[in-house]
Amino acid sequence: MTSPLTFINCEPTDSLSSHDRGLAYGHGVFETMRLGQGGIPLRQLHLQRLALGLDRLVIPVTAEVVNQQLDRVLRELPGEGMVKLMVTAGGGLRGYRPGGGEPTVLVQWYPAPAIPAAVSLQLCRYRLPANPVLAGIKHLNRLDQVLAAAELREGKQGLVLDQYDRIVEAISHNLFVRIAGRWRTPPLEQCGVAGVMRCYVMETLMPELGIAVDEQPLPVAALVDVEELFLCNAVTGIVPVSDVETVGRWPSQPGVDSLRRALLERLPCFAA
Amino acid sequence: MTSPLTFINCEPTDSLSSHDRGLAYGHGVFETMRLGQGGIPLRQLHLQRLALGLDRLVIPVTAEVVNQQLDRVLRELPGEGMVKLMVTAGGGLRGYRPGGGEPTVLVQWYPAPAIPAAVSLQLCRYRLPANPVLAGIKHLNRLDQVLAAAELREGKQGLVLDQYDRIVEAISHNLFVRIAGRWRTPPLEQCGVAGVMRCYVMETLMPELGIAVDEQPLPVAALVDVEELFLCNAVTGIVPVSDVETVGRWPSQPGVDSLRRALLERLPCFAA
Repeated sequence: MTSPLTFINCEPTDSLSSHDRGLAYGHGVFETMRLGQGGIPLRQLHLQRLALGLDRLVIPVTAEVVNQQLDRVLRELPGEGMVKLMVTAGGGLRGYRPGGGEPTVLVQWYPAPAIPAAVSLQLCRYRLPANPVLAGIKHLNRLDQVLAAAELREGKQGLVLDQYDRIVEAISHNLFVRIAGRWRTPPLEQCGVAGVMRCYVMETLMPELGIAVDEQPLPVAALVDVEELFLCNAVTGIVPVSDVETVGRWPSQPGVDSLRRALLERLPCFAA
Repeated sequence: MTSPLTFINCEPTDSLSSHDRGLAYGHGVFETMRLGQGGIPLRQLHLQRLALGLDRLVIPVTAEVVNQQLDRVLRELPGEGMVKLMVTAGGGLRGYRPGGGEPTVLVQWYPAPAIPAAVSLQLCRYRLPANPVLAGIKHLNRLDQVLAAAELREGKQGLVLDQYDRIVEAISHNLFVRIAGRWRTPPLEQCGVAGVMRCYVMETLMPELGIAVDEQPLPVAALVDVEELFLCNAVTGIVPVSDVETVGRWPSQPGVDSLRRALLERLPCFAA
């Protein structure tokens, strides 16, 4: 069970107590982060979201303390690849009520995945439930994503909708679309994960390029008006969408290409 | 990390791989079962719900196979107490899509908890999201219950509502109320866990006693009309509710007392 590339509370082990609340209830949060360029790009944004999740889930450890543990573990890991950081509420008492346990900090290293030149999407039937308390944070209750992904056909990624036929995100990416010349991305107050790369694109990359962007609901019916669209996350960066099954194809996307080039100038580790 | 009273895939160990999908995504189901009277009361009902959950979550193992493993482990456990059985999707591939792993079967033994003579309830502010695909089954995504339980004051248990101000359940129990002489319990098509004891009470105990019961929505405003009420689950049996904070008190409940006596005649292990 021991792997040198998995660390639990800074010890090299893959072995977790089956009584951990991360398993029992999904009582924890995680960050999936790229490794490269001598560190973790967008690390501050990851830590900000982690802090929000720890607070929301009443897990008694600060993002700063987790970050110090991460620093220690990073010295033992390859300089390239990706890192999954999980923080759970730890052992604690039996029963749902939080409290009583020391949080568990897990770090898993993986090789970097290949970044596709473009992705082909299908619309998932599974709908994301509305839950304003859990929306945005990256917690360990991910059955919504598992069930949406169970629908995927070979070579496809999936767009997921809310209960009102609005596109929220792709299963493990956020989505940006351009309609009538203006970029927008769905708001995430009711469901979805507020991606670190989404935040970087909206708050840094697009503003630096003088590109306006809105958070605005995206009814699935509006897909036919989309001129360009891309997915993004903190592992793959910006990935153009080639087509959405039964809806349309976007063979040429000069705006996305230029955004992607601008990202790679700033953060070259996101090159394929 | 090893405990003789925790078994993973029939081996006496508490040590789970941190790459298990049960931890990563809460991709698994569980049953919390009473041990006594030479076995597990209501075992068939537990297995039925387990089978439904395994199917719903695309976990490739049958309840029969899990039951055989449980049988082997039960021989190593005390004859009294409680057993938590978890079945996860196992190791598998990284990423949300199910498939590729051998399921993990975990059995944890605990001493039986004390059964209170009555419980005092508060109304939780946290609302259960609607999700017809996950409603009813006992999966490992339990942040709803953790966040509702985080509100509880000392000595209280909590009633949780849906987004439409209807009572769904108590955090780890189902609820029955009597209004205008007739028993009812909330339907669980949109959220909540369909408890094994709830099923036994509705489909066996009450019919045997000639008591009618309906599945019917229960707006929180209807609590003032409630004549008697009780909670139930497969660990504590039937437990009367003494009061719901800010709503009312029920010091005497002859109907609940008589139901509880009838349960204990049939299943004496649920005596306090």
